[in-house]
Amino acid sequence: MVDVVIVGSVALDTVKTPFGKVDDALGGAATFASFAASFFAKPGIVAVVGSDFPQQHLQLLKSRGIDLKGVCVEGLTFRWEGYYEYDMNEAKTIKTELGSFASFRPQLPEDYREAEYVFLANIDPELQLNVLNQIKKPKLTVMDTMNYWIQNKREKLMEVVKKADVLLLNDSEARQLFSTPNLVRAANEALKLGPKYVIIKKGEHGALMFSGSTHFNAPGYPLENVRDPTGSGDSFAGAFIGYIAKTKDASERSIRKAIIYGSSVASFNAEDFSLDRLKQITAPDIEGRYREFGSMREF
Amino acid sequence: MVDVVIVGSVALDTVKTPFGKVDDALGGAATFASFAASFFAKPGIVAVVGSDFPQQHLQLLKSRGIDLKGVCVEGLTFRWEGYYEYDMNEAKTIKTELGSFASFRPQLPEDYREAEYVFLANIDPELQLNVLNQIKKPKLTVMDTMNYWIQNKREKLMEVVKKADVLLLNDSEARQLFSTPNLVRAANEALKLGPKYVIIKKGEHGALMFSGSTHFNAPGYPLENVRDPTGSGDSFAGAFIGYIAKTKDASERSIRKAIIYGSSVASFNAEDFSLDRLKQITAPDIEGRYREFGSMREF
Repeated sequence: MVDVVIVGSVALDTVKTPFGKVDDALGGAATFASFAASFFAKPGIVAVVGSDFPQQHLQLLKSRGIDLKGVCVEGLTFRWEGYYEYDMNEAKTIKTELGSFASFRPQLPEDYREAEYVFLANIDPELQLNVLNQIKKPKLTVMDTMNYWIQNKREKLMEVVKKADVLLLNDSEARQLFSTPNLVRAANEALKLGPKYVIIKKGEHGALMFSGSTHFNAPGYPLENVRDPTGSGDSFAGAFIGYIAKTKDASERSIRKAIIYGSSVASFNAEDFSLDRLKQITAPDIEGRYREFGSMREF
Repeated sequence: MVDVVIVGSVALDTVKTPFGKVDDALGGAATFASFAASFFAKPGIVAVVGSDFPQQHLQLLKSRGIDLKGVCVEGLTFRWEGYYEYDMNEAKTIKTELGSFASFRPQLPEDYREAEYVFLANIDPELQLNVLNQIKKPKLTVMDTMNYWIQNKREKLMEVVKKADVLLLNDSEARQLFSTPNLVRAANEALKLGPKYVIIKKGEHGALMFSGSTHFNAPGYPLENVRDPTGSGDSFAGAFIGYIAKTKDASERSIRKAIIYGSSVASFNAEDFSLDRLKQITAPDIEGRYREFGSMREF
């Protein structure tokens, strides 16, 4: 029985930053998210990889207790190539190859359909919708997206937004989706569509959460060494929903704590390429940084 | 007897933002800073204005209890012309006319020399140094600067940094002054030069404070309507040092509170042009927003 169903890419990333480069490294939104969630709960991934996808990557996910019944092997693996300049907040995409994701319409395993927590990670909104519709009684649905889908499948994307309880966006996506430079306005527009919470991720500047009547400001963790921010937003989301699934508490109080756990795991992720840092950390590391988030905002 | 001596420009600003325009409106770093400080303590300004400077502006400052003995009338007033695009974090300068500030070497009034709190607002570092050297026993010296002085008077500026207890910079200035994109590294470099605290202002993203061993993260206030951010950094600084002067407490605990008071007043300032919003608010408004800063970060 899985606690959290996560749909999104399981991919091979080629990434260059001012601090190094990796070729065909393990990546993908569902990979980072499920790995982060696995510190808190049992995630199951819905994705497709090609026969070119290294077995060792699947072994790594399995070793974290991540359920892979929802991962099909077919055709070609999703590949992303991108780079960062000194402003590490913004990824520049050189190439995205959807591979088998372009036509992926999964049948969910029976126990996935019973899951109460769903994370629709960044992927084609048609696939997000397809997966969500197969979940019988979701208690909390969290969704993410990116500029590519905002531009190319806006209407379908809006259908997903209307069904989500928590909408995650980064700041530039929020501005783009709601055609305003002001994040408060963008969040208020988003809340009108249905989500109970809107969380805007601002990279090194932290995250903002808006509900109808309140707002919460999560700081960015002051990292002296950021090597590769790829997957930090996904790690944030995975730890977020993992914490909610663990506590079975989606009150605003719990949402706020989940945001800080998400920020904690995301900050570790940016310290190295691919999943290299997440593979090293333990639950006490995450707790330690969580407490640090507390002390750095006391006044 | 003044509590805080503030040296910096008292100016006429021509500002255009996506939400309006003002011509020759009251502005200047010392103006915003002293107005903000006056909610907490008694500031005295060291500045020069021309005979073209409207009397009503001086009357406004006097009505707030701001001491103007240090303001000379001579030659031409400092004028700044600039604009903002939709990214309201970055002011674009069209023109700066230093006017009589170019050769201003003031003799401080006797009671100013006894002041314990000094704010060296953004102005020629030679003038900052000249003023600081006339203060007999400063308990806390806070300094600000801007890219213009970093480019043109870097060495003199570094002399001031070495004498300051608190260095205020915005994020792009910090990156420029210490030649690194990483704000944590920039802050650590700054701390090596002498200041006990470095505060990096990040506009809508709030502010970071670094001491040798701790850091503090102040959120930005989520404003739905930002009309003109001009002077918000100066308002932040003025309220900051005003609060320290009022409490006579420069412990880290007090510094953190002062940063939130600074953030509170700065957020009001951005809601309208010139000092239009600061003229309307009262101490209870500032307290109310201060408390909101508390609740928006609880988890």
